[in-house]
Amino acid sequence: MRPLSARNPRVQRLARLARRREERIRERALVVEGPTAIGGALDAAIVVQEIYVEDGAADRPPVAAVLARLATVDGAPHPWEVPAGVLERIAGAAQGVVAIVEEPAPDWPTPDRCRFVLVLVDVADPGNVGTLVRAAVASGAGAVIVVGGADPMGPKVLRTAAGTAFLVPVLRAADAVAALTRLRTDGYRTVAAVLDPTAEAYDSIALDGPVAVVVGNEAHGLDAQVVDAADARTTIAMAGPAESLNVAMAGTLLCFEVLRRG
Amino acid sequence: MRPLSARNPRVQRLARLARRREERIRERALVVEGPTAIGGALDAAIVVQEIYVEDGAADRPPVAAVLARLATVDGAPHPWEVPAGVLERIAGAAQGVVAIVEEPAPDWPTPDRCRFVLVLVDVADPGNVGTLVRAAVASGAGAVIVVGGADPMGPKVLRTAAGTAFLVPVLRAADAVAALTRLRTDGYRTVAAVLDPTAEAYDSIALDGPVAVVVGNEAHGLDAQVVDAADARTTIAMAGPAESLNVAMAGTLLCFEVLRRG
Repeated sequence: MRPLSARNPRVQRLARLARRREERIRERALVVEGPTAIGGALDAAIVVQEIYVEDGAADRPPVAAVLARLATVDGAPHPWEVPAGVLERIAGAAQGVVAIVEEPAPDWPTPDRCRFVLVLVDVADPGNVGTLVRAAVASGAGAVIVVGGADPMGPKVLRTAAGTAFLVPVLRAADAVAALTRLRTDGYRTVAAVLDPTAEAYDSIALDGPVAVVVGNEAHGLDAQVVDAADARTTIAMAGPAESLNVAMAGTLLCFEVLRRG
Repeated sequence: MRPLSARNPRVQRLARLARRREERIRERALVVEGPTAIGGALDAAIVVQEIYVEDGAADRPPVAAVLARLATVDGAPHPWEVPAGVLERIAGAAQGVVAIVEEPAPDWPTPDRCRFVLVLVDVADPGNVGTLVRAAVASGAGAVIVVGGADPMGPKVLRTAAGTAFLVPVLRAADAVAALTRLRTDGYRTVAAVLDPTAEAYDSIALDGPVAVVVGNEAHGLDAQVVDAADARTTIAMAGPAESLNVAMAGTLLCFEVLRRG
């Protein structure tokens, strides 16, 4: 079989999905780069629609292993071959293999199925969103709700999440106040992370029962109306200046605080 | 004054220092990119040797502010102008201004001056080293000792540390076992972070008194002889798989655990 050219419509669709959030939302499809992340998608029983392998990469052990796993899945697609260099230009972390997968459509969390929800509001940096998804997975959160900011289903977030992104349900929501109101109505105690030192300390605030922890934008934090929509405000006491702790680090501390209170 | 060309020997020295760790160590000089990080160096009274401003950038408010601050420092250098584009090629985060500064030469920590030391062994990713330096600053560590891995005085680390890198003394050490032995001899309790679930839990292990927390490489953790050279081993219990927590997140949790025990 001849490799597909960079101008082939399938390759062009792959490039569009990799680059444009609106295309991903419209098609309800994601681009997953590299054998580790694709393996993570298979672990989570995500449906693979298409898979693209760089010419000559199918024999490399990590790529061969993920293709072999995929081949055991009922209805799995046959891999398309593309010339060397094409995948790297579309997806920097391809390492020889890229998949288009169906976007998971998780249910909105409820306290009976999910004790702990992490809510990200306008977190702009994909690396921070990816780290926060990892923190949610590591600490056993039952769902991540993402309002605005970087697309949690974008390639950069999936790359930072390093294969763990599909281990926790990730939902997009349009409005932060509406999301918090719904969580509160459903029985979650909603706790907003703020920089204000008069807020309750994160290591003593009540975090038992169903809880949703809410973190905000890197530069501006949470808007006042979002904080007002929450049940409580918490802060992390620091020895250094405020800018020494970024949102990914703060969110990690809060997630593990919920875990240790378990 | 005519801008210096990209071939000017001063500009070539700047490029060498930005790119090559050996040059930085030989000259005991660092490249600091952008007004925020240069402001952080000035806050810490670091000696600025040279400063380079992109043609036309001196009037931009953040650049103008840092140049005005520098002008009040006794013996401060006069800025060199360089053509647009030259700085960006040398230092991606220049935002119009780059400085060469003297490398700080902090003293080895001692328990009377410094209760908490963070030790990084073979942490390879500059972003992780930068985040761990931030965590040290945020949690009030008195020193960071870096053995192998990414150069803590390299531009990428300074960029991730976002202006906080000079707020904590950072020392390079050649050998991890020798560094831990010296810390123990001086009276530090040395605690090695490991993935082994039989190690003591980080939220209950003794961390009072002078303590040095030791974290290792992203892929391999700490070598057995480094762990054996420490007083104790600690681990962070997780709800997700091991790969969901990276070394920067784990180090942040450990730093804040020391702070809260304070």
